[in-house]
Amino acid sequence: MNYLDQPLKTYSEALASGEPTPGGGSAAALVGALGAALNSMVANFTVGREKFAAVEEEVKKVLAESEQLRAQLERLTVADTEAYGRVAAAQKMPRETEEEKAARKAAMQEALKAAAEVPLAAVRAGHRTLALASELVEKGNPNLITDVGVAAKFALAAMECAALNVEINLAYIKDDAYNASLRKEIAPMLHAGTHLAAEVWERVNQIVREGT
Amino acid sequence: MNYLDQPLKTYSEALASGEPTPGGGSAAALVGALGAALNSMVANFTVGREKFAAVEEEVKKVLAESEQLRAQLERLTVADTEAYGRVAAAQKMPRETEEEKAARKAAMQEALKAAAEVPLAAVRAGHRTLALASELVEKGNPNLITDVGVAAKFALAAMECAALNVEINLAYIKDDAYNASLRKEIAPMLHAGTHLAAEVWERVNQIVREGT
Repeated sequence: MNYLDQPLKTYSEALASGEPTPGGGSAAALVGALGAALNSMVANFTVGREKFAAVEEEVKKVLAESEQLRAQLERLTVADTEAYGRVAAAQKMPRETEEEKAARKAAMQEALKAAAEVPLAAVRAGHRTLALASELVEKGNPNLITDVGVAAKFALAAMECAALNVEINLAYIKDDAYNASLRKEIAPMLHAGTHLAAEVWERVNQIVREGT
Repeated sequence: MNYLDQPLKTYSEALASGEPTPGGGSAAALVGALGAALNSMVANFTVGREKFAAVEEEVKKVLAESEQLRAQLERLTVADTEAYGRVAAAQKMPRETEEEKAARKAAMQEALKAAAEVPLAAVRAGHRTLALASELVEKGNPNLITDVGVAAKFALAAMECAALNVEINLAYIKDDAYNASLRKEIAPMLHAGTHLAAEVWERVNQIVREGT
């Protein structure tokens, strides 16, 4: 089901239900999309205003990338549920003969890798969303400073939760080199993201305390 | 507009747009609702199963409270946009005579307090959502352990982002006793929430590393 076209309430109900999809992986991508949306909001309140003319071109670029990230993270919200479907389908393959067992095992491993790569893409997109929030702390319309802070928190939460969902797939993938390569890409993004989000949050709170 | 009845894509687009609502306060409540939904999902995969009969009654209680919190946080997602509308309406009141100025000022202060109390309610509901996630780490179906982790991250992000949105309202409220009472309630919730979320996250990651 394409949850993007369904009422917000329907997505929340489906998440809460006793059905396996959507689950935390899909929701992590959605929270990333909401973070990207807030970056876009801040950029939309900055671009085209005389007061922010000096950063106009840079904020226009932020807006263009942010809208790409929002669209991508929305797609991943749905793709996560589809990837789970392919794992479940492979799981149901027959396993009576040796040939069937081997075919099922290969299909499972392939489906699990595809399922790991959806949250991997969400980690990457969350990381870029966080970088854009960091750029907007100084360049964005200061009236929306709290929205920049929320964007950064959402981006980090999306990254961390997506990374957890990569990890739970890797637990079933019997390919050490593959698993190592994903972990090697994710670890430095999470490390940098944690520090960057803390910096943005501290700066946002400082600006709020000083008065906007 | 009741965004709960609108397509998910419409909410994301409205968040990204150059309109003041919805903004980060509404999105914070929504992320809290998604966290509550994930707690409900885990509880729904636990209740009614022989294997988890020993915790059946406790997890049923978790599910009932979680569904209440999800409904409340969904309402706050919309209420936040309505509260902003009342502040904007007060701002547009006439201010030519001294009487008009005084009436406008009083209306503004009242509207700002009402606007602060929406994210305050989200902080409280996020705090309870986090407590339920903590309960589900040990009592919930371990196949859904990553969903518990995501629920905890979302609950903390919702609390922190809602608290930031309380704070930006307090910056315009000229009632020190009122402001102090809200801050006095929020600070210990955030403090406890930060520690609890870290504990849950560490335990979830430990379980994922050990294999489910």
